[in-house]
Amino acid sequence: MDLGTVIGLVSGVAIVAFAILVGDNPLIFLNIQGLLIVVGGTAATTLIRFPLPKCIGAVEVVKNAFTHELSSNHAVIEELVALARKARKEGLLALEDHESNDEFLMRGLTLLVDGADADAVEEVLMTNVRYFKQRHKEGQEIFKEIGNAAPAFGMIGTLIGLVLMLSNMQDVAALGPAMAVAILTTLYGALIANVVALPIAKKLEIRSREEGLVRELMIVGLSNIAKGENPRMLETVLKSFLRARELPPEPDKPQEVRAA
Amino acid sequence: MDLGTVIGLVSGVAIVAFAILVGDNPLIFLNIQGLLIVVGGTAATTLIRFPLPKCIGAVEVVKNAFTHELSSNHAVIEELVALARKARKEGLLALEDHESNDEFLMRGLTLLVDGADADAVEEVLMTNVRYFKQRHKEGQEIFKEIGNAAPAFGMIGTLIGLVLMLSNMQDVAALGPAMAVAILTTLYGALIANVVALPIAKKLEIRSREEGLVRELMIVGLSNIAKGENPRMLETVLKSFLRARELPPEPDKPQEVRAA
Amino acid sequence: MDLGTVIGLVSGVAIVAFAILVGDNPLIFLNIQGLLIVVGGTAATTLIRFPLPKCIGAVEVVKNAFTHELSSNHAVIEELVALARKARKEGLLALEDHESNDEFLMRGLTLLVDGADADAVEEVLMTNVRYFKQRHKEGQEIFKEIGNAAPAFGMIGTLIGLVLMLSNMQDVAALGPAMAVAILTTLYGALIANVVALPIAKKLEIRSREEGLVRELMIVGLSNIAKGENPRMLETVLKSFLRARELPPEPDKPQEVRAA
Amino acid sequence: MDLGTVIGLVSGVAIVAFAILVGDNPLIFLNIQGLLIVVGGTAATTLIRFPLPKCIGAVEVVKNAFTHELSSNHAVIEELVALARKARKEGLLALEDHESNDEFLMRGLTLLVDGADADAVEEVLMTNVRYFKQRHKEGQEIFKEIGNAAPAFGMIGTLIGLVLMLSNMQDVAALGPAMAVAILTTLYGALIANVVALPIAKKLEIRSREEGLVRELMIVGLSNIAKGENPRMLETVLKSFLRARELPPEPDKPQEVRAA
Amino acid sequence: MDLGTVIGLVSGVAIVAFAILVGDNPLIFLNIQGLLIVVGGTAATTLIRFPLPKCIGAVEVVKNAFTHELSSNHAVIEELVALARKARKEGLLALEDHESNDEFLMRGLTLLVDGADADAVEEVLMTNVRYFKQRHKEGQEIFKEIGNAAPAFGMIGTLIGLVLMLSNMQDVAALGPAMAVAILTTLYGALIANVVALPIAKKLEIRSREEGLVRELMIVGLSNIAKGENPRMLETVLKSFLRARELPPEPDKPQEVRAA
Repeated sequence: MDLGTVIGLVSGVAIVAFAILVGDNPLIFLNIQGLLIVVGGTAATTLIRFPLPKCIGAVEVVKNAFTHELSSNHAVIEELVALARKARKEGLLALEDHESNDEFLMRGLTLLVDGADADAVEEVLMTNVRYFKQRHKEGQEIFKEIGNAAPAFGMIGTLIGLVLMLSNMQDVAALGPAMAVAILTTLYGALIANVVALPIAKKLEIRSREEGLVRELMIVGLSNIAKGENPRMLETVLKSFLRARELPPEPDKPQEVRAA
Repeated sequence: MDLGTVIGLVSGVAIVAFAILVGDNPLIFLNIQGLLIVVGGTAATTLIRFPLPKCIGAVEVVKNAFTHELSSNHAVIEELVALARKARKEGLLALEDHESNDEFLMRGLTLLVDGADADAVEEVLMTNVRYFKQRHKEGQEIFKEIGNAAPAFGMIGTLIGLVLMLSNMQDVAALGPAMAVAILTTLYGALIANVVALPIAKKLEIRSREEGLVRELMIVGLSNIAKGENPRMLETVLKSFLRARELPPEPDKPQEVRAA
Repeated sequence: MDLGTVIGLVSGVAIVAFAILVGDNPLIFLNIQGLLIVVGGTAATTLIRFPLPKCIGAVEVVKNAFTHELSSNHAVIEELVALARKARKEGLLALEDHESNDEFLMRGLTLLVDGADADAVEEVLMTNVRYFKQRHKEGQEIFKEIGNAAPAFGMIGTLIGLVLMLSNMQDVAALGPAMAVAILTTLYGALIANVVALPIAKKLEIRSREEGLVRELMIVGLSNIAKGENPRMLETVLKSFLRARELPPEPDKPQEVRAA
Repeated sequence: MDLGTVIGLVSGVAIVAFAILVGDNPLIFLNIQGLLIVVGGTAATTLIRFPLPKCIGAVEVVKNAFTHELSSNHAVIEELVALARKARKEGLLALEDHESNDEFLMRGLTLLVDGADADAVEEVLMTNVRYFKQRHKEGQEIFKEIGNAAPAFGMIGTLIGLVLMLSNMQDVAALGPAMAVAILTTLYGALIANVVALPIAKKLEIRSREEGLVRELMIVGLSNIAKGENPRMLETVLKSFLRARELPPEPDKPQEVRAA
Repeated sequence: MDLGTVIGLVSGVAIVAFAILVGDNPLIFLNIQGLLIVVGGTAATTLIRFPLPKCIGAVEVVKNAFTHELSSNHAVIEELVALARKARKEGLLALEDHESNDEFLMRGLTLLVDGADADAVEEVLMTNVRYFKQRHKEGQEIFKEIGNAAPAFGMIGTLIGLVLMLSNMQDVAALGPAMAVAILTTLYGALIANVVALPIAKKLEIRSREEGLVRELMIVGLSNIAKGENPRMLETVLKSFLRARELPPEPDKPQEVRAA
């Protein structure tokens, strides 16, 4: 889990907790019935919208996004260029021994070793990327829908509270606290959406884009290896995906640019 | 109907019912006139927006989406690979005997048996998928529009109630209950939109996407059969549509990957 | 005008009328000045946004959408297949005698008879469809803008009413009715948007899509006739645009599918 | 400036003025400080968003959109067909004498006379259209942003007013007028957005589309002239851009259709 | 930093400061706790959404957008045409000596000098532009998310304040000031979003588009140089990207147009 996420989560919770605890009686912010309406209603509506396996899968996608470390673009380029060099010298079959934790890269290498041509490699891997992106999009979608549903159920809870309060106004002194309780569900909905669901949805989107870039680098690399292209040209092409800053410092920068 | 939907529907209704029943007098939440404005207004506006047959068709689409079981992607791939093997051994005409509940697959097989080439099969089936997706989109659209119209009529009902209340304020004691009644239509609108219409619209969208994937698998499969391609390569291509997890466990996983 | 629209319009008006008439004094819902702000302001802003001829044209488009009966997809397919058979037997010139109310079909036939090839027919007709869709989109746009402007002017009217009321609060008893009058313009805006403008905009969109499908069928049909293709294959292709349910029942359904 | 715009502007201002003047004291609607917050804040934020030259350019674009008369599509088609006839008879060089106010048409003719082929003419003019549309989009963008910023600063002004009022509630009698003043900025924001900024943004969009159509007609025409195509076929193609209604009435309509 | 931005920033802050300072006690607008909720909550949620390096990178992107001067389109065209002339006369290798501050142009020239053909140059540079635009989009995204999160945390702060206030209503005199404090966070959120975050996001978008245009000009220029095209034709093509007004005045305008 990257440092920013940890800081964000801890400080986010700390800030809300502080704002609540500063009052005389923090327990006024706890309303079990209201919590049930917002959390339960949001969960129920999510289960109607999405098939159960997708909901369970989303949890895993999130766990993955927050803990799994991505290989750096630069390391991937290094690895691909090394593979291209090896393939040039020793032939495609030499790639059979390559070991990598990346399932996607291994799948591509297997295709290469099995003798698939550049077009076939690209087609199979692109289809794979397309569906991988769609699955990621589904994960984002679930959290976006939670981010929409939670405020809606917060409002529903508040409306129910207001109706109860307004239809029974004998004790004017009780109006304030009753109103406070009614407002609580709106607060719950806003917190669930803005502190939990929407940040996670965005995190997944960013993550999916980064992972997509890594895979795109791999497809370009593998297809060029299949075509038997010059490893040096490959390096230039792959590095054009990165911005100058991501390239590692080199002793002779101008020459590096020229070499490209 | 998948388990998640059942849990979602039952718990959703239970939660709202509980929130209402917890008050002394649950009947204050029932206001026939308000219900008429929201439900009737939403229905009326939907009938103006969409032709009657589409509205009736939408009901069927929903029934379908909630009850009809989709074949698993994996079973479809198995079936297509088996068909490819049969066609390779015994010729395309041998596919004539194949039995399937899937109308779309049968349509494709008939084309194959009739001697249509890969391009013709793809064109006819792709057109079919395109219009099938459009019809699904129309179903979603109806429920999305209901999800927009219901809160709007909820607000209209509340505005009417407020005008009635405000222009007749002699009895201050009656203000609270009158206000409660006015707010009720907003609550009805929010419930119709968030518990019924929007979840159904999303469900249809997800469903359409899944059904589209199954049909896409079939088109790729049938067009490859028409081209007489290697059933083993076909399997690799089709499986690249799935994520690793959806593939069934095999005794020797690494070899399976290699075989691909 | 299809039945659903009639039911929708009548019941929509009836529901709102009923909600208003149920009060002691329905006249409190009539406020000429408020009506002027909302209707006049919306009309004025629409005239700034859209050129006058487009505004006038939009009225006609709506009249058309609500009264003009579309030919059924199935009838169009029948007609095209019959034309294809005639052209095959008697040559393209035989199509000169064909009579149709559909201006678009006649334009296409004229091109065919004049000896334009399939590509030219497609190009001219596709350009025509593209601009016809754009004109329809402009009609929708006008009603969507009305649907945005009416609530905005409703809010402007309410704000003006509130300022007038708040700056003159001597008579507290008059506050309620003054507030009621201020709220009225918001109600007017919501009614214009949700009962009139937005349903019409959606209706035009749906209508445009249906008309587009009919024209697409005609283009496919005419271009295939120009290519001199087999009328039976043409029928299969055209029917792939429809769902199974739209096809007429036939004595021997399975054979029909096979024949396709 | 077309008639609709004049009517729209005059009646829009008249309606708002009437609504305000109907009160006893129209001056309550004038609050210099509030006006400063909304107008000044909106202007400031627009200057941060857009470079100064674009802001100044936007004023000119608007002036242009409201005063510059577009040539009618039909006149442009006539002109292009005449040019095609002349080029056919006297050669492309004869087009050198053609005089037109339209800078775009002149640019295209110069290219033709200089001997550029159809593809080069299309490429240069299409690039031109693409960037012309982008510049128009930037004009729209500025007014859309104003339409977003004005209500936001209206709300900021109201919030500031409310804080001032609430933190100093000794004199209850002053509450009403203070509240009225606070609300005024929201009213200003709504008026700026809905009476000025958003209608102008839409007007520019419509205008850009119409101008784009005229230029597209010119590109099709000039490229066909470069290819030396039949002027009569050109007329058919160009007229397929228009709807039947825009074509001028002709003595023998059926024959005109046939001739096409 | 261009003049408009300076004016916008200074006047924006001045206007808000004036609106606040006009009251008797400007300190009522300062609420440390509220500020902590809105600024802290927004920062925390941003750190969860975006990886830490991207957040830090965004600061740099902004600094860049507000201070770095873009070369004018016209100067770039001049430079490219000069390069084309030089390459024509002295060969591509002569471009090796060219000096430019623009890293992108230098990268392209290096490719040219190294003998890459037009397609390779285009591919490498287009990939570069694509990823450069994506990085800019990420910068915009961060500020758009801040623009969404700040009002949400403003509302959360207000809801917390309202709950605290309503559950403790003994002292009615304290209600006003408590309400004022509760509203403050909404004001903070609106100011952060509308005075800071959204204008910056828009500025980055505009800037990215302008920088993209400059780079597109360079790609067209370099690829034409690689193809050895006529420098004069290149000038015509490049200038078709600009509007007439951006072209420098020339002694004989009509001839300039003709020469094009």
